[in-house]
Amino acid sequence: MSKEITSRSVDYSQWYNDLILKAGLADYSAVRGCMVIKPYGYALWENMRDVLDKMFKDTGHVNAYFPIFIPKSLFEAEEKNAEGFAKECAVVTHYRLKSDPDNPGKLIVDPEAKLEEELVVRPTSEAIIWNTYKTWIQSYRDLPILVNQWANVVRWEMRTRLFLRTAEFLWQEGHTAHATRDEAIEETEKMLEVYATFAEKYMALPVVKGVKTENERFAGADDTYCIEALMQDGKALQAGTSHFLGQNFAKAFDVTYINKENKPELVWATSWGVSTRLIGALVMAHSDDEGLVLPPKLAPIQVVIVPIYKGEESKALIDAKANEIIAGLKANGIRVKYDDSDNARPGWKFAEYEMKGVPVRLAIGARDIENNVIEIARRDTREKSSVSLDGLVEHIGNLLNDIQESIFNKSLQFRNEHITEVNHWDEFVATLDTKTGFVSAHWDGTNETEDKIKNLTKATIRCIPLDNKQEAGICILSGNPSKQRVLFARAY
Amino acid sequence: MSKEITSRSVDYSQWYNDLILKAGLADYSAVRGCMVIKPYGYALWENMRDVLDKMFKDTGHVNAYFPIFIPKSLFEAEEKNAEGFAKECAVVTHYRLKSDPDNPGKLIVDPEAKLEEELVVRPTSEAIIWNTYKTWIQSYRDLPILVNQWANVVRWEMRTRLFLRTAEFLWQEGHTAHATRDEAIEETEKMLEVYATFAEKYMALPVVKGVKTENERFAGADDTYCIEALMQDGKALQAGTSHFLGQNFAKAFDVTYINKENKPELVWATSWGVSTRLIGALVMAHSDDEGLVLPPKLAPIQVVIVPIYKGEESKALIDAKANEIIAGLKANGIRVKYDDSDNARPGWKFAEYEMKGVPVRLAIGARDIENNVIEIARRDTREKSSVSLDGLVEHIGNLLNDIQESIFNKSLQFRNEHITEVNHWDEFVATLDTKTGFVSAHWDGTNETEDKIKNLTKATIRCIPLDNKQEAGICILSGNPSKQRVLFARAY
Repeated sequence: MSKEITSRSVDYSQWYNDLILKAGLADYSAVRGCMVIKPYGYALWENMRDVLDKMFKDTGHVNAYFPIFIPKSLFEAEEKNAEGFAKECAVVTHYRLKSDPDNPGKLIVDPEAKLEEELVVRPTSEAIIWNTYKTWIQSYRDLPILVNQWANVVRWEMRTRLFLRTAEFLWQEGHTAHATRDEAIEETEKMLEVYATFAEKYMALPVVKGVKTENERFAGADDTYCIEALMQDGKALQAGTSHFLGQNFAKAFDVTYINKENKPELVWATSWGVSTRLIGALVMAHSDDEGLVLPPKLAPIQVVIVPIYKGEESKALIDAKANEIIAGLKANGIRVKYDDSDNARPGWKFAEYEMKGVPVRLAIGARDIENNVIEIARRDTREKSSVSLDGLVEHIGNLLNDIQESIFNKSLQFRNEHITEVNHWDEFVATLDTKTGFVSAHWDGTNETEDKIKNLTKATIRCIPLDNKQEAGICILSGNPSKQRVLFARAY
Repeated sequence: MSKEITSRSVDYSQWYNDLILKAGLADYSAVRGCMVIKPYGYALWENMRDVLDKMFKDTGHVNAYFPIFIPKSLFEAEEKNAEGFAKECAVVTHYRLKSDPDNPGKLIVDPEAKLEEELVVRPTSEAIIWNTYKTWIQSYRDLPILVNQWANVVRWEMRTRLFLRTAEFLWQEGHTAHATRDEAIEETEKMLEVYATFAEKYMALPVVKGVKTENERFAGADDTYCIEALMQDGKALQAGTSHFLGQNFAKAFDVTYINKENKPELVWATSWGVSTRLIGALVMAHSDDEGLVLPPKLAPIQVVIVPIYKGEESKALIDAKANEIIAGLKANGIRVKYDDSDNARPGWKFAEYEMKGVPVRLAIGARDIENNVIEIARRDTREKSSVSLDGLVEHIGNLLNDIQESIFNKSLQFRNEHITEVNHWDEFVATLDTKTGFVSAHWDGTNETEDKIKNLTKATIRCIPLDNKQEAGICILSGNPSKQRVLFARAY
């Protein structure tokens, strides 16, 4: 089978890359660190985007679009944010090419077309957006501003991986402005909840909701909330973040509003985002050595039908029955594909759709029709069964729900089995090295200890879970007093 | 009234800018030539995008995403294309900023982070896409490739205008690959037809379908098909283009396929695009001195309801009736907004929604409810009438259709009245200067004459209409023989 991929047990990382390429989700490109999102991968992103977009609109947000370029002087205005992203910025310095006098047919950058001020390709848009909000906000009546943007951003990363870390990626970034601190915090938490719901209900991906430590905070935020998921290799992955930005950007861009008492006040801010990285998370969380396993709610194709026939006569009979089934499925909002292409055998097609993670596969032959049955294979468990053609559509609807739930439960069980409470340093290191997963341990609350642990083990504090139990303890490394356990893990 | 805008008769260009800003479609930004698309403008773009996206998918296309950066060596591969866009390219030369040693808190471009090869920010994506297609295409079985991309592109224009010509804009670009010349030409024509249908049925914008002259062709195309619309000031606007690219990109990137006879052949290409420029066209074609006039099919809000009340008791009564109407409209898929905000008087709201081009406004007071009637105002004609609350939803549905049709017919009549056949040079110049619009005139078919006419009058050949009548004549300028009339106009 030409489509074979490295198995997870041999090399998890290679398995992931093989799978992304073989399933047709993405390709490497000619541009360092940038990928091509192929039609199948983009269809998955469209499904994710459409669900999220509706959730944002249902919570009162509207979309807008801001320039991709940020003049350097604006970019540097919020110093912490600028410092945090400076090392990853692609910078436009010229606005014209010209013919190379030494090489006919070739181009060079025109030295006379140098920009007076360099433009940063947005790594995130707080600067350009808050510079705009300054003109939109005068009075408390202009607040809140609840805007989201779907866009591409660029962060010049040294080590890149398809979907998980690419120089350019697609994302959404919400940027809201509020009259009060409480309202901004409420928004930050609300959007974290939206992300958690999306991850669990649609991606079938259980997440821990929490808050980042100061070390791991978004550059320019007062607090970063996050959802953390666990991949099959026991490494954590940050799947979404929601930042309470305090008044940092309002100060940097001098954004004030006149309150009801007619006094000027600084505006409060949030920002929140998820990206095409979620596709990497989805793949790593559920898929297996045969290919993708996609949750039905997001799968570009939910059901594929493969006809099994010899000769045109039996084909015509099967086509008629298949079209009847397809009409029924479509009428129930189920995304179905009929693959009657004649350039591949059924076995090849079966493997192909397993690789692509289509949740349900139907195979139908003339004999099946005679017996009023059809063969159903579910992708997640790879179980096959023969079911009656009567009530098939309802059966498939239920099956898709079952698969969605089953994928989630499997991930949840794995995740829950991989949260380990430890109380001693040796146990901490051993757990990270052998069992892997989240390690729940006491930490003295200092940046120094956190840094030391990271240097010693490559594990970071993924988050302090929301509503974390407060309990006195001893820091795993320093032995100093601790008020609570936090979640450590090695992470993507 | 604070929202007043310059009238069209005083200064059409200023009217347009005022309107874009006052209606909340877009804003200037801190980045030279780039705009901010505000939520109302973006909602309009979303509606346009959703319709087009469905039309593309219905014609067999899928979406994908390619990198925003094009390495210079790829960009220059197709020489004509490169030459055509070289003067407008934003170029990334560095990938890092660092602290300015001389100015604490400021950043400078890190000279040590200079890219080995400069990256062009895509002005169009043929180069990066065809370099990718090279790896996707081996055999005739891999063809056709029917891919579209929704993306931002950058063209460094010297003179910019909101929506019509901005350094960065949003667009879609289809890029297809075919086994045969005929199939590629068929695709080029099919997508032109899709654009024309979209313009006429959704934007209510009549267009002339035609082919560009060699002078006006897309850089790298063998033929550029276009749709041309007429604005209220009598200037033409190119609203969409579909290019037959021949084998130019296949040659530049060495993209061949093995045909059924097992021989290698070069692949045939098309590309086609429309952009946020369409929003500018929509505004310029239909709007008036009171604000936007939007076709109902694309309007973000189709119906606005304004309550007219004194005191809470009458408000409660009106709210109840309004909610009933809203439920009925929503059930019929009509986008409705209830503006019961208490910080503005009805008269202010009326003007505001006229400015925003909401097609239908309902005003309802306690007395109306007693009489079982409601006041309806249509935006396009500004006619008001009082209609029965019985059958209101159906009435509004019909009214929205009427408005859609009426806006189109008005534009069509204007456009038809502004296609003038002329046979003498003096008449040609006079028509351009006074009557304006399209001028249908004989042209000798040479680039030289076309250039001369452009230099003398600023008019360009907008297109040679499809299925153009062939008739012998005398070129308007040179007096040389001509085989057909072409459409000239001054244009945006």
